[in-house]
This record gives sequence, C-alpha cells and structure tokens, in this order.
Amino acid sequence: MSVTENLISVFALGGLNEIGKNMYAIEYSNDIVIIDCGNKFPDESLLGIDLIIPDITYLIENKDRVRALIVTHGHEDHIGGIPFFLKRLNVPVYATRFTLGLIEIKLKEHKLLRESELLEINSHSKLKFGKMGVSFFKVTHSIPDCLGIVFQTPLGNIVHTGDFKFDLTPVNNQHSDIHKMAEIGNEGVLLLLSESTNAERPGLTPSEQTIGEQLDAAFMKAERKVIISTFASNISRVQQIVNAAQKTNRKIALLGRSMVNVVAVAIERGYLTVPDGMLIDQNEINELPPEKVAILCTGSQGEPLAALARLSTGNFRGIDILPKDTVIFAAGPIPGNERNVTSIIDNLYALGATVIYGSGSSSRIHVSGHGYQEDLKLMLTLMNPKYFIPIHGELRMLHHHRLLAESIGVDRGNTFIMNNGDVVDIEHGIARQTRNIPVGNTYVDGGEIGNVGGFVLRDRKQFSEDGMLIIVLTMSKAEGKLLSEPETISRGFIDSDFSELRRNLNQLTTKIVNELQEENRNQWNVLKREIKKSIQQRVFNQMKRKPMIVPILIEI
Amino acid sequence: MSVTENLISVFALGGLNEIGKNMYAIEYSNDIVIIDCGNKFPDESLLGIDLIIPDITYLIENKDRVRALIVTHGHEDHIGGIPFFLKRLNVPVYATRFTLGLIEIKLKEHKLLRESELLEINSHSKLKFGKMGVSFFKVTHSIPDCLGIVFQTPLGNIVHTGDFKFDLTPVNNQHSDIHKMAEIGNEGVLLLLSESTNAERPGLTPSEQTIGEQLDAAFMKAERKVIISTFASNISRVQQIVNAAQKTNRKIALLGRSMVNVVAVAIERGYLTVPDGMLIDQNEINELPPEKVAILCTGSQGEPLAALARLSTGNFRGIDILPKDTVIFAAGPIPGNERNVTSIIDNLYALGATVIYGSGSSSRIHVSGHGYQEDLKLMLTLMNPKYFIPIHGELRMLHHHRLLAESIGVDRGNTFIMNNGDVVDIEHGIARQTRNIPVGNTYVDGGEIGNVGGFVLRDRKQFSEDGMLIIVLTMSKAEGKLLSEPETISRGFIDSDFSELRRNLNQLTTKIVNELQEENRNQWNVLKREIKKSIQQRVFNQMKRKPMIVPILIEI
Repeated sequence: MSVTENLISVFALGGLNEIGKNMYAIEYSNDIVIIDCGNKFPDESLLGIDLIIPDITYLIENKDRVRALIVTHGHEDHIGGIPFFLKRLNVPVYATRFTLGLIEIKLKEHKLLRESELLEINSHSKLKFGKMGVSFFKVTHSIPDCLGIVFQTPLGNIVHTGDFKFDLTPVNNQHSDIHKMAEIGNEGVLLLLSESTNAERPGLTPSEQTIGEQLDAAFMKAERKVIISTFASNISRVQQIVNAAQKTNRKIALLGRSMVNVVAVAIERGYLTVPDGMLIDQNEINELPPEKVAILCTGSQGEPLAALARLSTGNFRGIDILPKDTVIFAAGPIPGNERNVTSIIDNLYALGATVIYGSGSSSRIHVSGHGYQEDLKLMLTLMNPKYFIPIHGELRMLHHHRLLAESIGVDRGNTFIMNNGDVVDIEHGIARQTRNIPVGNTYVDGGEIGNVGGFVLRDRKQFSEDGMLIIVLTMSKAEGKLLSEPETISRGFIDSDFSELRRNLNQLTTKIVNELQEENRNQWNVLKREIKKSIQQRVFNQMKRKPMIVPILIEI
Repeated sequence: MSVTENLISVFALGGLNEIGKNMYAIEYSNDIVIIDCGNKFPDESLLGIDLIIPDITYLIENKDRVRALIVTHGHEDHIGGIPFFLKRLNVPVYATRFTLGLIEIKLKEHKLLRESELLEINSHSKLKFGKMGVSFFKVTHSIPDCLGIVFQTPLGNIVHTGDFKFDLTPVNNQHSDIHKMAEIGNEGVLLLLSESTNAERPGLTPSEQTIGEQLDAAFMKAERKVIISTFASNISRVQQIVNAAQKTNRKIALLGRSMVNVVAVAIERGYLTVPDGMLIDQNEINELPPEKVAILCTGSQGEPLAALARLSTGNFRGIDILPKDTVIFAAGPIPGNERNVTSIIDNLYALGATVIYGSGSSSRIHVSGHGYQEDLKLMLTLMNPKYFIPIHGELRMLHHHRLLAESIGVDRGNTFIMNNGDVVDIEHGIARQTRNIPVGNTYVDGGEIGNVGGFVLRDRKQFSEDGMLIIVLTMSKAEGKLLSEPETISRGFIDSDFSELRRNLNQLTTKIVNELQEENRNQWNVLKREIKKSIQQRVFNQMKRKPMIVPILIEI
C-alpha cells in the first residue's frame, strides 16, 4: 500500500451492511487512527456463538502505524470488542469520562484494566497523531457524553458523526454543539461519515423530554409496585424515572448487574442525580408498602436471564409481581427481540399485572436515540460535505441515507455505498473506491476468540435440525474383520423406541463392511464414505430426516 | 364427564395463548363438533421441528361422539393440521368451496384425498348434529369465502366468529353479512367466541381497496420488470395486482408452488378473474420487454427457500433481478419474520433494484385481515353476548379483548380468559370454568408425527450451543479391562487442532476406568456417570463450554 502525504484512506472494519461491531479507520501518512470497537450479537443461525467482533488482521499487520483507538460513546456496538482488541493490540484508548467508566467495567471483567492506557477527553480536547489533528464536537444520543470527531489533514477535514439525534430539549444537559458543527461545515468538510440507523424513518426524532410526562402519568396512576425496565446506559431515561419516583414518593431498588454497575458509574461521575436515601437494597422492597416502591431493572429486550424475565416467571428470589402491580417497558424492542418481549408481557398479564408496553404506538414510552430523516438532513446540511459515506447501518439504510444526501445537494456520484473492508482513497482532492483490505467476523464462544468456524457451525446446524446417528465398528487390526456387530447410537434423533430401525441399520452396516472387504476396498475412508451414504439414504427414505452420520472405527 | 342435555361445553385444543394451531370444540349432549384444525410454525427453540399441531388425545378417546370438522377458512393456522387429524380420526369435513380447494391440495400431498369425506357448505347451509343445529354467516378476511358459525341448542346459541375484519368496500364481493349478524344478535347470543389477533391496535382496519391505488401507482412508476410478492391465499390482493398489471399492459408470471396452486384453485372456482392470455410461463419472461412483465411470487415473509429469496440472491434459474427492476412487498412481515425480510430487501438493493417495502408506515402496501379494536367492538355490539371467550391470540391480546367487551357492556365476570384445554360448562344458563381436558403440542418432524419430544430437543439444544464429545471405550467382556486407549471424537465443538486436549481427556478417562476397576465399581452406568462428570468439568474449566458428553462402551 502506497503511503504518501497526498493520500487519505478511510475504511470500516465493521458497521457497514450490518447493525453492530462498529469500527472505522482513518489512515493518513504514517498514522492509523481507529474509531470505536464494537461487538454485535449473533442471529439464530450462528448456533452457540456468544459475540461477534471485527477481524483485525489488517491492523495487526500494520500495528506499528496504529496510534490510537478513539471511542465516540459507550454503547456495546461501539465498545464491546475493546477487551479482545486490546489483548492483541494495546494502543491508547481515548474517550469521554462516562464512556471510560463503562470501558473500565469491561476491562476489569477481563482483568485488563491495569495494562490498558485509558485517556480522558472531552469536546474541547485536541489531539495530534503525526500530521493529523483531531478535535471533537458534542452530539446527543441515548447515552451521555457522546462525541463526533473531526480529523484535520492538510488535504482537508474528515468528520465522523458518531451516533446522534438532534434533541433541542435533551435531559441532563446533553446538548449537541450545533454552533460548532456549523463552524466545522463553514471551514469545509472534505468527507463526512454519518450514521444511518433511522434513515428509513421520515420526520424528526421526538425529544427525550416527551417521555418524562408519560412516565409521571404512569407512576401517578400506579396503585401498587412499579416495575420499570429500560437500557441501563440510557441515563437520561433513568434520570426521568428517578424524577417520576421522587414526585410519587417512591424509593427505587435496582435489579440486574448492568443496571447496578452503570447507575453507579453515572452517579459517581456526575451524570445522574439521585436524592439521598432514594436508592434501597432489594431486600428492603418487601418492608415498604407497595405504593412506595419502584423497581428499576434490566431486561427490557426480553433477555431470558435478565431481571425482568425472571420476575415475570416468578423466578426472582424474594421479589414477586402481584396483581395490580404496574410493569412499564420504557424501551422499544430492537428488531429481532419482539418475540422474547411479548412472551414476557404475556407472563406478566398471567400474574395479574397492569402492563404498559406501547401496544398502540401512542402509548409507547420510548423514543429513539438515532436521528430520523430530518435529523440526518440537518447534519448533512450543517456539514455540507464534498464526499459522503453513510455508515452504521444495513444496506437499505445506507441507500436511503444516500437519497437524503442527494436531497440536500451532495452529488450522487460523491456518495460511497461501501462494504466493510472497502477503502476510499482521497488523493489530490479526488475520492475513489477501488481496493479493499481483509475484514470479517471473529466469533467469541465461551469468552474466547476463535476455535469456532465453518465446520463447527455446519455440524451444529445439522444436529440441531435432525440429530445424529453414531455407528461404531470394532475391527481387528490384523484381519480387517468386524469383531462384533456394529452398534448404532442416536442423539437428538428420536425419543421413542427405534430398535427396529437400529437393527436394520446395524445389518446394513455389516453388509457394507463385508462387501467392501470382499472387494478388498475396506480402507477406513472408503468404509466411512459408503456407510454415511447408505445410512443417510435409508433413514431419509424411511423418515424424511437427515441426521448427521458419524461412523467410528475402533481397531484392536 | 357428565353428559346431559342441560350442559354445553366449550373448549380449545389450540389457539389460546398462541398464534396458530386453532382448534375449538363444542360439546352438546352426545355430540362433539370441531371448528378448524390448524398448525403453527415452531420458534427457534424447537430445533428441527417442522410443524406443531394440536394434540387430539381427548378427541380420540371420545371418537364415537365426534360428528364433524367445520372449517371457517383456508389459512394454514386453520387447516394445516387437517391431514394429520384425518389420518387418526376420519370425520366429515365441512367447508366452503374455496376453502375445500385448499384442503384438497393438502390431502392430495398426503395421499388422503380419496378416503376423506369433504362436504361443501356456504353461508346459507344448515346442518344438524343430534339436537345441535348449525348455521353460518359470511365474514370478510384476507382470504375468500370465510364463515362465522352459529350453534343452536335448546339452551341458547353459541357464535364463533372465525377470523374477520369489517371491510365495507372489500374486493371481489367478499362482504360481511352484517344484517344477518344483527339478526343473530337480536335472537340472543348465549356465548360469543371472537378472534383477538389485533385487539391491541386502536381504530378500524383500513379497507383492502386502499391497496389498489397504491399498487396502480407503483406499477405505473416502474421502469422495468415488476416483481411483487404477497400471501398466495390473499386472492383479493392478487386480484388487485392482476388489475394493476392489466392497466399497465403487463403480462404476469407466477413463481412458487403455493402461488401456482392457489391461483389455479381461485381461477377454477371463480374467485379470481384473470384476462385471457395474461398469465405467461416463467420461460417467457425473458422474451418480453421488461416493462411488459410482472412476476407474482411467494416469499413475502422472507422464507429462505421461496421464490423471492432465491431471486434476491441470483439463485433462480433463468430469471434475474436487474438494476431499475421494481420489487414490491405487498404484505407486512408477520412478527418474527422481520430479519428474514430485511435481509432480502438488502440483497435486492445490492442488485440495484428499487424496493417498495413500507419503510415509513405510510408507504406500506399492506392492510391487515384481522379487525382492530373498533372492528372487534362492532362484532361484540352486533352479537351482544351474555358470555364471552376471546380466542385466537396470545394472552395480552385476550386481555385487551376482554377490556373491549367490557367497554360495550359485557360483565367483566362473564368473560373467560382461558388456556387450551380449559372447559367452559354452561348449565341452566350459567357458565363456569372449573375443569380441563388434556391438550398439548404434537410435533411434526420430517412429515411425520411424534418421535420428537423433550429429550431429543434438549440434546439438539445442547449440541447446537457447544457441540459434542464422544468418548469410546473398548473393554474386554471377560475381564472388564480396557482393550485399547480410550478415543475422544468431537463434533460441533472446535475447528482447530485439539490434540492436546484430546490426549488429556483420553488420559483422564483411562484414569477413571482404572480407579473404578480397582474399587470394583466398573459397572457401565457408574463408569458412564463418572466419565461424563469429570470430562464435563475439565472442559468447562479449560474452555468455559459445556459440550454434550457421550460415552460409548464397546465390549468384546
């Protein structure tokens, strides 16, 4: 790769054509700066995989030039990959005070806190890596202390928005630096990278403050305990829940590890104000009259092991949801989580609770943290970029975002719809997308990277659909003859007695072995292939199923 | 169970607290009449299961009293279980002309058509089973020829609505019998069973006709081929697609088995009007100019093997989606299918197509076939029942439907929120829910009932998460000693070399066998238990995973 001072290169290691594992890079001269390092959660096809993080092979190969990881905000899809990244590439990490608090929780869990270099920045910070200057601007999102980033190079400025919405009446003073954005735009933006999550949704995102009134009304109306769930990191929402509890004289108990951890960071670092004595321990819940209690818990996405799911099935030790308790979902379901959420709602109804969950869109106690079309157009207008890369979204979102850019005057040909790994090179003021770097998914299973790839996943899929038949052959090493009847063992295949089929399959196996032996073709690979083929066929003809066939040879 | 002429009993074998596998029963005196026999599709936790149908043990036990299966309409969740049901209980099946057409397709596939007794009815039919009269009324839904049912008994009338909406301007003359419903209500309804699918949604369902204008506009605007997908059974929608094609001078090719089958039934039986020469074979698509072609296909729910999914990945032989082709989703995603649908949309964008899929709710080319709150209130008002059982829905929907019944004057205590198997007995004009009959899910895997239950599913789940280790021991029958080193084989566990771990595990197994032998405890069940326990522990400590452990003993 030619590295000259006339060339800026921009690419994503994750975050394009997907929701999650955001990781972007800016290369100028001899320096690479990384933006964010997130994870994403696997869909059902990736059986048994816990997390997906970006493949950072390219960065490892160029590790002498990687100067820093700058983190825009503390959501999992922007910080969840950091521990795995730092284990392999220990570079300085720059983030705001609140974001660092969340990163520290993660690094502690991975026992990495001591050797990591964490550097606090704010929207006034200025950094320098080689000839590349870096400055910041505040954006509003559904978590405190979010940044957009400006990379200053002699060739022009590159802006990365981070995740954002425009909320003119945010909670807890989380305003956007609109004036600063206007100035950046005025100075000239060569390339804008802007997030696309809600590029399909018309209009402007509602303000977070609209939630406050609904929360107050719901708390006011509640006859007994209030159980309320939201994203732990949405501190503005948590603040409004605290306010509603205060107005209705309720104490708050926190349930769920991430709720306890994140609220502690938010209070300690000054992002959340909770009146003295309001927080109670979960053991105290039953000592107070139910109309004096609110429980703030994790699990708004229906996560099966989170507090709310356990409460809804009566499996939370010491705390019961009783008739006339009020349960509030103060978060919308992320696509894919709907079924888990509705099954919890059903369980809560079965317990006799009143459930507020946004059945009609009017009653939904949630607003998005990601800007709708008008928010995105405002950002595009303020920045007025020459080139544009829509980031942070699936392909249809990137396409819609391109149309928005066109509508405010960005030339269609100046927008790049890219894949992870595609590189935009800007040279002599002209941007081109012609080459790519290696990228991919790295799977985390059981807290560890790797070990799980295509073969393993293919086997897991086949087994999960039709189970397995193990065929054991015991043969004499000397003569290549069967020492006993073949044995067929099933797992995940059939519940009832299958002795007749088993006898059949054992006979079939014996026949195959004997025939191949006569033909002198009883080498193990031939045997294996023929047994697999014949057993598969027989089982499919009889039962229309395709279990995995595992022949095992024991030679004695 | 006491059977007297003063007792009517009503229960569900499926359809309560779930979406799918609808099956309800009315018992009076010596007669049982069944309403519908649907299937439902499993969620991801039921690995490898193809279909779920109702457990009909109770009906088998009372088969001498089961007089008929009456089918309200031809959707899968009302007819999908019929072949499996008739194999075990061959009773007469009553349904309208169109519904029978769809049932016949199914019975043909199962080679059951000849021995089945299919009887055509319409909204004027009158049936009699013992002392129970049965009559019908037309309802509007998203499939032609739908019925509600009235059961007349000396104790009072029971009404089952079927699936319905009120559409005052339906397509193809599929009007509701509102006057007849009003009469039925005037005569007095002892008990109403009404469907609850959209009980959470405020307002009135939009008319199917509103779709027509949007379809016309989309066809008008399309520059090249139109590819459009909807539910095959939604003949009103298909009719409007045919109309739009006619107005824009396009021929239509049908893709996908169910689209071809259902459209054939609809044309043959007079429910769909297609101009002569409009339908073309898929081979003719490429012979016409693209602006003269529309392709109507299956796959609007993102089904991975359906026509649209294959088109979107370039895997449909002979037909390509090209830049400037227009793809229209004329159906909303059913909850749970969102991810499959959006991934197809992304693939279509990648091919350069224009995609119309209802990103903003305004542009959605779909209306529901299930009545919203105002539709449900109109039915409740017309029928004015003494007792009410909300059916066909998950628990939260049933709860919302109860509130709607209350709002039009049904006593809260007269509404029964029930589970499948709960029986409402009406005696001397008083309804009570005190007992239940056995019900459950019957799994279909590979076209066959049964064989797959708890153990199999548990194994499939464990394997799909962490794979399997098979430990093979070869021992001499006479001496109970190992004849060779134990062997460890993995599947779905690890991709990379695990020879070190394998050696470790083999040694561990040898140690266990030898120790137990010295203690004279080397019985196979003890060996198996100890091997499982130790191997599981060792693997978890080292890798934080819990594969299934399968010890296999070969004795020679």
